[in-house]
Amino acid sequence: MLDKKYLTLKKSIELFLKRINPKNLSYEVIPIEKAYHRVTFEDIYASENLPGFRRSTVDGFAVRSQDTFGAKETMPAYLTVKARIQMGSAPDFSLGPGECAEIGTGGMLPEGADAVVMVEHVNVVSSDLIEVLKPVGPGENVIFEDEDIKKGEIVIPKGHKLKPQDIGALAGLGFSEIKVVKKPVVSIILTGDEIIPHTEKSMPGKVRDINSFVLAGLIEETGGVSLKMGIVKDDYKEIKDVVDKAFESSDIVLITGGTSAGIKDMTAQIINELGEPGVIFHGVSIKPGKPIIAGICNQKPVFGLPGHPVAVYICFELFVKPVIHRLLGLTDKIYKPKVKAKLTRSIFSQAGRTDFIRVYLEERDNNLFATPLLSKSGLIMTLVKANGILCIPEDLLGFEKDEEVEVEIL
Amino acid sequence: MLDKKYLTLKKSIELFLKRINPKNLSYEVIPIEKAYHRVTFEDIYASENLPGFRRSTVDGFAVRSQDTFGAKETMPAYLTVKARIQMGSAPDFSLGPGECAEIGTGGMLPEGADAVVMVEHVNVVSSDLIEVLKPVGPGENVIFEDEDIKKGEIVIPKGHKLKPQDIGALAGLGFSEIKVVKKPVVSIILTGDEIIPHTEKSMPGKVRDINSFVLAGLIEETGGVSLKMGIVKDDYKEIKDVVDKAFESSDIVLITGGTSAGIKDMTAQIINELGEPGVIFHGVSIKPGKPIIAGICNQKPVFGLPGHPVAVYICFELFVKPVIHRLLGLTDKIYKPKVKAKLTRSIFSQAGRTDFIRVYLEERDNNLFATPLLSKSGLIMTLVKANGILCIPEDLLGFEKDEEVEVEIL
Repeated sequence: MLDKKYLTLKKSIELFLKRINPKNLSYEVIPIEKAYHRVTFEDIYASENLPGFRRSTVDGFAVRSQDTFGAKETMPAYLTVKARIQMGSAPDFSLGPGECAEIGTGGMLPEGADAVVMVEHVNVVSSDLIEVLKPVGPGENVIFEDEDIKKGEIVIPKGHKLKPQDIGALAGLGFSEIKVVKKPVVSIILTGDEIIPHTEKSMPGKVRDINSFVLAGLIEETGGVSLKMGIVKDDYKEIKDVVDKAFESSDIVLITGGTSAGIKDMTAQIINELGEPGVIFHGVSIKPGKPIIAGICNQKPVFGLPGHPVAVYICFELFVKPVIHRLLGLTDKIYKPKVKAKLTRSIFSQAGRTDFIRVYLEERDNNLFATPLLSKSGLIMTLVKANGILCIPEDLLGFEKDEEVEVEIL
Repeated sequence: MLDKKYLTLKKSIELFLKRINPKNLSYEVIPIEKAYHRVTFEDIYASENLPGFRRSTVDGFAVRSQDTFGAKETMPAYLTVKARIQMGSAPDFSLGPGECAEIGTGGMLPEGADAVVMVEHVNVVSSDLIEVLKPVGPGENVIFEDEDIKKGEIVIPKGHKLKPQDIGALAGLGFSEIKVVKKPVVSIILTGDEIIPHTEKSMPGKVRDINSFVLAGLIEETGGVSLKMGIVKDDYKEIKDVVDKAFESSDIVLITGGTSAGIKDMTAQIINELGEPGVIFHGVSIKPGKPIIAGICNQKPVFGLPGHPVAVYICFELFVKPVIHRLLGLTDKIYKPKVKAKLTRSIFSQAGRTDFIRVYLEERDNNLFATPLLSKSGLIMTLVKANGILCIPEDLLGFEKDEEVEVEIL
């Protein structure tokens, strides 16, 4: 009953992840429109300056700043309006002393101009004469040609998950396609004589597949491609055949179910037969998810996940997700969304074990409360009803009612 | 220069959102495999119990609990093993007094049995006799037939964005398809004589389209469908034609650019001509994003967004995203991911104005630091380099260096 023979969570993750260091990631070249949430394969350098010319940040008049020095309401600087700069075109003239040109936000400064006076600081005397009421310094209200992006600069580093603003910057630089890391393929094998497809009628003794739907969603959200290998009977030969096939056609293999003692050993045996070194650990001191098996076979990760949906979920988050991130070459620091909330009842754990408690977060009178959704293991509805997960670390025996705890948002 | 004539952020959002109350959302019926991140159109009720039969949560022996009362290591209860229950099948026998049946985790209890003794608390004497070393109470180590989900219960409420675990629960209940709210179509119109497509060569005076890529990504992430209407010259008739077309074929219209004074009025005029009541507000006391125009025309939201990418981003998050959520009928409480960090320099704002500062979060010695990325407005790279946004509320004049601030994760 004691978890002494099991690894702690921290040790098991360390032990496993240090062996996942893919040397050669594969890439594909895709249009930037398809690259949202994909991970960059290499540093992306700017091939030109952005905006590429000196732009005004305001509506007003492009000027030679020295012509405005000392200007004030009581003694304005008079400037001749040489032209109105058309938006989107390069001015075909330059400013001499005492000259200015009308310019809109985003317009290109003419030669000779080095600043823009805002329209609010100008009195328009006639179509070709203005009074400047306030001086501008060199560069004022101007974006320089390389101020947004400098040619040769790294725009997006390697290993970054592309956000809408990143794709925007790439478009601005004229990229139409880029190299992204290929999505790791994660195969899902369901084992168990009691499992039937979700399209089948319910029958006493049988339960429908829940796990392949939970896993497929999590895999896609993490940036992988899910590959459903179907439901396999609890039979060594049948499981081995499907695992072999999955191993050939995917980058990570997930075998769920088979939590009963006999089957568990079968899964471990099959993993050991796939390649060296085989099973890395078997059982971790966590709840739920204790019976997890993690193996590496010829550098390919293979997991034996428990059959309970909640355990599957937790094991995915703890072990499979970081592995997918490694296979994506992701280098972004990930900040898990967390909130602080007050516990509505005490919860307890065992020393040395890390517990993951589903909680329901609720705001009352501007305070956030977390109610633990306790139940027997494996009930999918506790996970459906939860909007947060509370972790009781291995060195704590639990949390008291009314204690402030940190909850990860689901 | 003062923002006195502009609405505050809070007022502008209130003013606008109270008018967005779609009465009749449209739905579509789709397979559950496609329903990840979609929003439920109606409450989804369980048509049956889950798991639907009494299941064992452990490996062991199904028993009549009263037969084990008082059992202990020194005086075990002797039970006859009647059968081994096959996983996935309904036992065709019932337990009489003094009888038990071997059962695996997830196996179905036979008639007569009301608890399961874990294999660890049993001595197997022979193939048909065991010693029970510890008593079990009624229901112990058993999941009842309606313990996960009760028939008739709401499994997923209306207006909920479906997570992997929700799809799992639906699969478990045998749903193959469900009703989800149709994705709102959000059209994007780019205006500006200076804008060229991202595939064109750079030219002095011209800038490539950044905004349609930023917006399309944000729209899709929020649960909408983006519809790019192309780039339009700063010409009343041309803009009006495209806006009319977009208005016909989408649920929300976004017009970006046209921040210069003349054009701004044109956008407002076109929105007013689209339908009643027209422009709701024009200008909000925020930075960036001040010149935003928000209108409702025959109950359809139409926005005039500033041309600067960063302003577009902020305006989308503040105004467009909540509108898409309304049109999706989303009722989930959204917890924005936030962290606390120490400011590395002081930043200042104006009274009455809400500022959104891009920051770079960095962990040093287990402390999180936020460095403001200050720059002229509109530079896309400040947003690309940022991994957090810091809000200076309207009633504050800024934050001091070393102050602890709350940063929203980007």
